[in-house]
Amino acid sequence: MLPIDDSPIVRDGKSLILAMDHGLEHGPVDFEDVPEKLDPATVFETATHDAVTAMAVQKGIAEGYYPSYEDDVNLLLKLNGTSNLWMGEPDSPVNCTVDYAAELGADAVGFTVYSGSNHEVEMYEEFRDAQESARDHDLPMVMWSYPRGQGLKNDTKPSTISYATRLALEIGADIAKVKYPGDPDAMEHACKAAGDMNVVMSGGSKTSDYDFLSTVEAAVNAGCTGLAVGRNVWQRENPTHILDALEKVIFEEETADAALEAAE
Amino acid sequence: MLPIDDSPIVRDGKSLILAMDHGLEHGPVDFEDVPEKLDPATVFETATHDAVTAMAVQKGIAEGYYPSYEDDVNLLLKLNGTSNLWMGEPDSPVNCTVDYAAELGADAVGFTVYSGSNHEVEMYEEFRDAQESARDHDLPMVMWSYPRGQGLKNDTKPSTISYATRLALEIGADIAKVKYPGDPDAMEHACKAAGDMNVVMSGGSKTSDYDFLSTVEAAVNAGCTGLAVGRNVWQRENPTHILDALEKVIFEEETADAALEAAE
Amino acid sequence: MLPIDDSPIVRDGKSLILAMDHGLEHGPVDFEDVPEKLDPATVFETATHDAVTAMAVQKGIAEGYYPSYEDDVNLLLKLNGTSNLWMGEPDSPVNCTVDYAAELGADAVGFTVYSGSNHEVEMYEEFRDAQESARDHDLPMVMWSYPRGQGLKNDTKPSTISYATRLALEIGADIAKVKYPGDPDAMEHACKAAGDMNVVMSGGSKTSDYDFLSTVEAAVNAGCTGLAVGRNVWQRENPTHILDALEKVIFEEETADAALEAAE
Amino acid sequence: MLPIDDSPIVRDGKSLILAMDHGLEHGPVDFEDVPEKLDPATVFETATHDAVTAMAVQKGIAEGYYPSYEDDVNLLLKLNGTSNLWMGEPDSPVNCTVDYAAELGADAVGFTVYSGSNHEVEMYEEFRDAQESARDHDLPMVMWSYPRGQGLKNDTKPSTISYATRLALEIGADIAKVKYPGDPDAMEHACKAAGDMNVVMSGGSKTSDYDFLSTVEAAVNAGCTGLAVGRNVWQRENPTHILDALEKVIFEEETADAALEAAE
Amino acid sequence: MLPIDDSPIVRDGKSLILAMDHGLEHGPVDFEDVPEKLDPATVFETATHDAVTAMAVQKGIAEGYYPSYEDDVNLLLKLNGTSNLWMGEPDSPVNCTVDYAAELGADAVGFTVYSGSNHEVEMYEEFRDAQESARDHDLPMVMWSYPRGQGLKNDTKPSTISYATRLALEIGADIAKVKYPGDPDAMEHACKAAGDMNVVMSGGSKTSDYDFLSTVEAAVNAGCTGLAVGRNVWQRENPTHILDALEKVIFEEETADAALEAAE
Repeated sequence: MLPIDDSPIVRDGKSLILAMDHGLEHGPVDFEDVPEKLDPATVFETATHDAVTAMAVQKGIAEGYYPSYEDDVNLLLKLNGTSNLWMGEPDSPVNCTVDYAAELGADAVGFTVYSGSNHEVEMYEEFRDAQESARDHDLPMVMWSYPRGQGLKNDTKPSTISYATRLALEIGADIAKVKYPGDPDAMEHACKAAGDMNVVMSGGSKTSDYDFLSTVEAAVNAGCTGLAVGRNVWQRENPTHILDALEKVIFEEETADAALEAAE
Repeated sequence: MLPIDDSPIVRDGKSLILAMDHGLEHGPVDFEDVPEKLDPATVFETATHDAVTAMAVQKGIAEGYYPSYEDDVNLLLKLNGTSNLWMGEPDSPVNCTVDYAAELGADAVGFTVYSGSNHEVEMYEEFRDAQESARDHDLPMVMWSYPRGQGLKNDTKPSTISYATRLALEIGADIAKVKYPGDPDAMEHACKAAGDMNVVMSGGSKTSDYDFLSTVEAAVNAGCTGLAVGRNVWQRENPTHILDALEKVIFEEETADAALEAAE
Repeated sequence: MLPIDDSPIVRDGKSLILAMDHGLEHGPVDFEDVPEKLDPATVFETATHDAVTAMAVQKGIAEGYYPSYEDDVNLLLKLNGTSNLWMGEPDSPVNCTVDYAAELGADAVGFTVYSGSNHEVEMYEEFRDAQESARDHDLPMVMWSYPRGQGLKNDTKPSTISYATRLALEIGADIAKVKYPGDPDAMEHACKAAGDMNVVMSGGSKTSDYDFLSTVEAAVNAGCTGLAVGRNVWQRENPTHILDALEKVIFEEETADAALEAAE
Repeated sequence: MLPIDDSPIVRDGKSLILAMDHGLEHGPVDFEDVPEKLDPATVFETATHDAVTAMAVQKGIAEGYYPSYEDDVNLLLKLNGTSNLWMGEPDSPVNCTVDYAAELGADAVGFTVYSGSNHEVEMYEEFRDAQESARDHDLPMVMWSYPRGQGLKNDTKPSTISYATRLALEIGADIAKVKYPGDPDAMEHACKAAGDMNVVMSGGSKTSDYDFLSTVEAAVNAGCTGLAVGRNVWQRENPTHILDALEKVIFEEETADAALEAAE
Repeated sequence: MLPIDDSPIVRDGKSLILAMDHGLEHGPVDFEDVPEKLDPATVFETATHDAVTAMAVQKGIAEGYYPSYEDDVNLLLKLNGTSNLWMGEPDSPVNCTVDYAAELGADAVGFTVYSGSNHEVEMYEEFRDAQESARDHDLPMVMWSYPRGQGLKNDTKPSTISYATRLALEIGADIAKVKYPGDPDAMEHACKAAGDMNVVMSGGSKTSDYDFLSTVEAAVNAGCTGLAVGRNVWQRENPTHILDALEKVIFEEETADAALEAAE
């Protein structure tokens, strides 16, 4: 962990990362109800919203679409990612080098680590290479810290999420992205386990406006410095509406109720 | 994905790639009915047809035969490829570096990726190395995007083909080569899943002139920017005849019927 | 083994290493009774005690907290380490290169080796790379020499601990950190098996002041040149108290009784 | 495949390669009836015969004996090779780099590839590295193309040998060394499958003078550009005698009968 | 094999290598009856005997003790070596690079190869890297040629030892160290299988003075150029006594009887 308050992906100590790598991780099925979003340009448009501090995409999407948005969007280049088609212990290929991410204009890089996978050893060593290369380029390292594997029955229980944030701190991430552990106390413990490192909550699959914003509110109150979200924004009919509300909950620390009301 | 309209392997936004790597992938058995085609020079001759925007071959064939055709044929050097003799999850050795492909005069490089194979992680990382090296040489990257492996029962179902084109976009291909998913709507969805990236249909095993051209016509109408074809051209007695027709269907967007009539 | 008496992590031939990598190896559960110690700064404060010759942490902790303590604490950067979440033969990913450790201001580097694991071959070769790189940077190499694996039933029996110190000497460590083999004669044999190399005892899980100090006294009498300790210091309410006592036992070779009395 | 008619290992388009790597591949048992041939100098003496265009040996033999014969013998340095003592799918370690082969004065390099082995992927990639390095040194690449492995019941059937020659052409060999497929038509097909690339027959285990020469005659008539032979030469009492006859069959395209008669 | 008669580890064509890597390969148990020999300095003292042409140790021992003996002892740095604690097919990690061995002042390097292990492929390739690097440093390569593995029932039968010496010659060793195959004829055959390469006998576990010297005498008569010995020297009460006798048997080719008598 290095100080990242001066990074463009953080504003007033907070981050709202819009992620769109679902075409790789889940496939076009995630776009079934919003087929127009198959066109990455539509999501980049959404990312121009003031509340969004960075957009997270894979290399190919960055190559093809970021040049048109580089003045309005900060790029978080996700370095690894995998399809969900194969079988075996969790792993994720490194699809982009940090050098190339820097060349594409990235403001930060992202890396998934499945601690607890029987491929943990390889993944940590790939993380190390990327992290040290990111240091050379002065690029913050965002770690998707997702314990998962044969030895883990439940990947969102409190002790797992606290371990997840701590692992990110120990091996050198600057921001940890973790799932919500189900209750605010557990989230608070996970944030403490991260020391001074920023922790952002994963948005997860689509829920109602209120449920989603309430969870974000709870996470922020528990110490999270923001959110990394995909489906709960771009699967909505009106992404701007929810981003307006998120801006209030995350950056102005308003309640979900107040934010929803204001956003009407 | 980078812009490739200026590449010699694309003409008016379309491509017709003649492929002849079957000696490696399937063995001489594919030449059983056309034994004279065992001589690669015969297929290079065919590739001098105006409709052909590139010829795809392995390194050894390029070394031995391309020097005689470099003025008349654009070279798409296929970087990986495997025999069909061994057993295990799909994989494909990298037989040629991008540096050497460039030295041989390649206008583009090709790479097979079996997403869904339990070797997906290794294949994506080999693809990354090749892709970033291709960027250094300004060579477009054509991805044979063929999901295949233990976890995949049917490799041409619509959702698989749409996933295949999307994966190619996400990890940084410039053109995806995929199998026809059986109907035009599925093909159209797959093309949309690819965003602005070019998609070419795989020619597959030999069928009748009409059946073949009709499928190409459907694919082009669905959004494909062309065809990569081997057996359906050089296994024919008169490759020129079918290439004349393909030129009309692909570049002039004529119907299969009209193209066949004109080619008589 | 190279001479290390001039190294800052050794004073008068002795070392007292305070270790805090438990957040990686065991998870936040080790901090359950001392939740305030989840904040690494608290442990760095403890490490400013005169008795402590080095503090051992992972890369991320060093990045985030060492800059505030570099004048008062010597850094022993632990290069590898793993979560306890996965299944399989013991192994440990290399999370930090020696080059980067040097950049962070490390005074020494640390490396766990599980001799006897079916991954021994890989671990020894990673140790070699780190050791030779450490030589280039003039950084002493502390080896956590922990035989463990399918073929080892009991990892603290005398012959195993003597083998552990000897292995560290043979493959090029400068200090071996080993578990206490249960009795002073066994510890003495293990120290002799190490030749002229320094051997420090591992602190292990928390015990009473007297039990802990008595074991340290026995180890020092048996030839150990000190202690590497975590939980037995920072899991205590008053770490300073036990460090005062340890200073007497280790550096002044007083008895546990005398040291405890003096520390009252 | 690059043009190799100017290479010293080819004379008038033909090659007669004397191979002696049996000490590695089979062990000293192959020398049981000719114990004096355990001394590699004796086989190098044989290789000074005018008919021999190259001698194929492993690195250690080349280091120790080639300096005395470099004016009279062309060196084909066999880069990989294995003992027959272990168990598992066919594979062959790379025992010599091309750089070092060039330093030893090699005129060409040789490489075994077991297509069909479950290690095919690794072997092809090692072949690639060697082949591209050989191109840098202007050294022809002779491929021992021996399909073998779990998926192959019969490694000399016609379709396998034709696939073997084709694979060598596709991945960039300059000469393929294959087993005789049992009849001249199959051999002819295999030569055609190799396009313009040279194909030499493997000598195999020792047979009678007539049987051996007849097979060579048939192979040459079928399109083979020569022979790579070991035991059928140096296991004979009088290697010069059989080399005299081979010279006539291979370079002067005489019949086995005529060659034997002339050699009396 | 390169000429090594000018190497300091050979005198009058003969070698007597004193080995002490048992602390790594077997553990301190080998020192049970001679606990003072746990101190490597004692064995280095023994190695100053005129008869000893080189002392073979691992990296860590060389770092710590060789500086005091570099004027009186030639260093044979053993590059790989393993504990006996793990389970699986034989293998041996490379614990020291040749570059670093040279920096430590090595006069030669040593490498164990378990031909016949299912890790043979990896071991041969590691041997290659070390051997070619040793060539760059003009350091002779001594190969501990020990066939061993799932496919080998008896690792000292005559055909195995002859294969062992031949393999060392083929892949580029300068001296092969092999076990005694049980009778002089078998040893002679093994020496012949090595061509002009030096072969030294392994000393093995401790036997009586007469039995040991008789075997050495037989080995020398059979063509061995010396001995590599550990336990049969330093496990003795009086190592000088046996070295005096070995000097006569190896360098003066006296009988075991005469040597023992003279040494009284």
